[in-house]
Amino acid sequence: MKKIRLGIVGCGIAARELHFPALKELTDKFEIVAVTSRTREHAEDFAKLVSETLGSTPQVFNSYEELLLSKQVDAVDLTLPIELNVPFIKQAVEHDLHVICEKPISTDVKSGKELVEFSLQTNKVIYIAENYRHAFKYNKIRELLHEGAIGQPIFVDWHLWIGMDKENKYVKTTWRQIPKHIGGFLSDGGVHHIAALRVMLGDIEWVSGQVKRITDYLGDVDFLSTLFEFKTGVVGNYTVSYAVKGEKYFEIVGTEGKIRLTPNSIVLSGKVNEEIPLIQENTFKKEFEDFYEVLTTEKPNILGNPAEALKDLAFFEAAIKSKGEKVEIERLIKEA
Amino acid sequence: MKKIRLGIVGCGIAARELHFPALKELTDKFEIVAVTSRTREHAEDFAKLVSETLGSTPQVFNSYEELLLSKQVDAVDLTLPIELNVPFIKQAVEHDLHVICEKPISTDVKSGKELVEFSLQTNKVIYIAENYRHAFKYNKIRELLHEGAIGQPIFVDWHLWIGMDKENKYVKTTWRQIPKHIGGFLSDGGVHHIAALRVMLGDIEWVSGQVKRITDYLGDVDFLSTLFEFKTGVVGNYTVSYAVKGEKYFEIVGTEGKIRLTPNSIVLSGKVNEEIPLIQENTFKKEFEDFYEVLTTEKPNILGNPAEALKDLAFFEAAIKSKGEKVEIERLIKEA
Repeated sequence: MKKIRLGIVGCGIAARELHFPALKELTDKFEIVAVTSRTREHAEDFAKLVSETLGSTPQVFNSYEELLLSKQVDAVDLTLPIELNVPFIKQAVEHDLHVICEKPISTDVKSGKELVEFSLQTNKVIYIAENYRHAFKYNKIRELLHEGAIGQPIFVDWHLWIGMDKENKYVKTTWRQIPKHIGGFLSDGGVHHIAALRVMLGDIEWVSGQVKRITDYLGDVDFLSTLFEFKTGVVGNYTVSYAVKGEKYFEIVGTEGKIRLTPNSIVLSGKVNEEIPLIQENTFKKEFEDFYEVLTTEKPNILGNPAEALKDLAFFEAAIKSKGEKVEIERLIKEA
Repeated sequence: MKKIRLGIVGCGIAARELHFPALKELTDKFEIVAVTSRTREHAEDFAKLVSETLGSTPQVFNSYEELLLSKQVDAVDLTLPIELNVPFIKQAVEHDLHVICEKPISTDVKSGKELVEFSLQTNKVIYIAENYRHAFKYNKIRELLHEGAIGQPIFVDWHLWIGMDKENKYVKTTWRQIPKHIGGFLSDGGVHHIAALRVMLGDIEWVSGQVKRITDYLGDVDFLSTLFEFKTGVVGNYTVSYAVKGEKYFEIVGTEGKIRLTPNSIVLSGKVNEEIPLIQENTFKKEFEDFYEVLTTEKPNILGNPAEALKDLAFFEAAIKSKGEKVEIERLIKEA
């Protein structure tokens, strides 16, 4: 089996804590051969981590440009400040390399849309890594809904009280403190939730939202509440605060029952009464496996498709701009 | 103490099951001396109920007109199909009588607004009976919020899955099956919830909503989900279905804690951790006591004020017309 020679670009939290733990389980598929980071020290630390864990030492490059020109990699894995995603992806493709890039696709819909258009002009794979699309729980819920486990779904409600304090490692990231991406944490963290909602219930037609800024240390607005409608007619509320900490709440209500998501299980009640335990899984590993299949087989790039990532981001741009007005997602993308 | 001589107009569910049980506890304040109903038999049954319970038999009138002309009553208590509220209230006042009338104020904002304007031209009391404004739990929560029990309130969410079946006594009422009031059960039942929200959190600035019709036997749309904002900046979601039955969910989230309402208690968590048991109370009795005080003392008509009832109704007209667009409540009233 052909191994993909991978260059890691950006050695921050996502590279160290999310991607590397997945990649180290996939040494039959990926070989980390090159590393670069804005700070050379970070790149060297990362190379050392790879070396100590896997026994082979990737080459440290002083710059992204040098890595791209090295001819040593087949693909790059980008975990960067969001504003660098689009230019770095384009640069990789222009150097004839495939790309996997951590979500969100970009800072805003306009630049994200440009990338989607760019992706249609190349035969290189541009894979936006959204691990929530690979998660068992959301895919299982989609399946349950399709089986009619709660009758006709009517309504979904998701509250998340994430409550990050000043010492949170993400909060301390400079590029998150002065975000160039729309809505700061709202879009950065939020695309996961919208990806999950879309896995379960399909595309969203429109959203009406209102934002608030509750704390001064989260870089931007940090609270959002929305009303929205899926193309199927299912109505939803999604409310999130990165300032206030508390219990999450997730439920889908249908004509014949209800699905709740708890930290450990999917709970069905009504027509079907069942508790389905959540499985232990590494969704990052799943996304790299999918990326590998897209690179090495005829499998189309569905789960990492930039157009899908753009829809997740567009929800936030729509909701943040809304101030209570209805914003149609497709129209927002079209007119961006 | 002066007793108010009361004429009961309309002898349906509300008169028998909501108002009479309250009035029979208030024989020192009210004397039911007259009764009329569209169906004479219902009026006679009601008179019999009064007679058997209280020992004095009210006079049964063939028509509202006759009752108004009888000079035997000081005030009328109207529990009618909603479309009769405004004309019947006006007629009572024109006959120099005070009125207490079961919510909602009217079928729509336009006619409700006319009644509010009419109420300002008379010194007769027009009291719209909204028992939720008198409930301990909502007033207690308002107090807790004012005391800062959860810090700065940010968000309120209220889901109600009322789930009425075809055999429900309200569903079987003809005027509810072919409703002339906006949104059928949505406004009929819903004004209670908005009254409660306004007791707790003040006036609502705007709403964005979406409605659905899930069943065919509830006369009109039967599901509503909304995003809205109070004048204070608190954001809310209110979702209700009269078709789907399920557990209610109510919470207010603040910067330093949360208030949940359970069937038996108010549960505070965060800054304050306390469970406050709900008290046994008859909120209809409280509203009649308040009506009595307004009639017999200098107490202003605040809790039964038609202008307040109009705001509750306006929320629904706004939310139903919205289809995702932002509708400002005051503007809707102004332009009606």
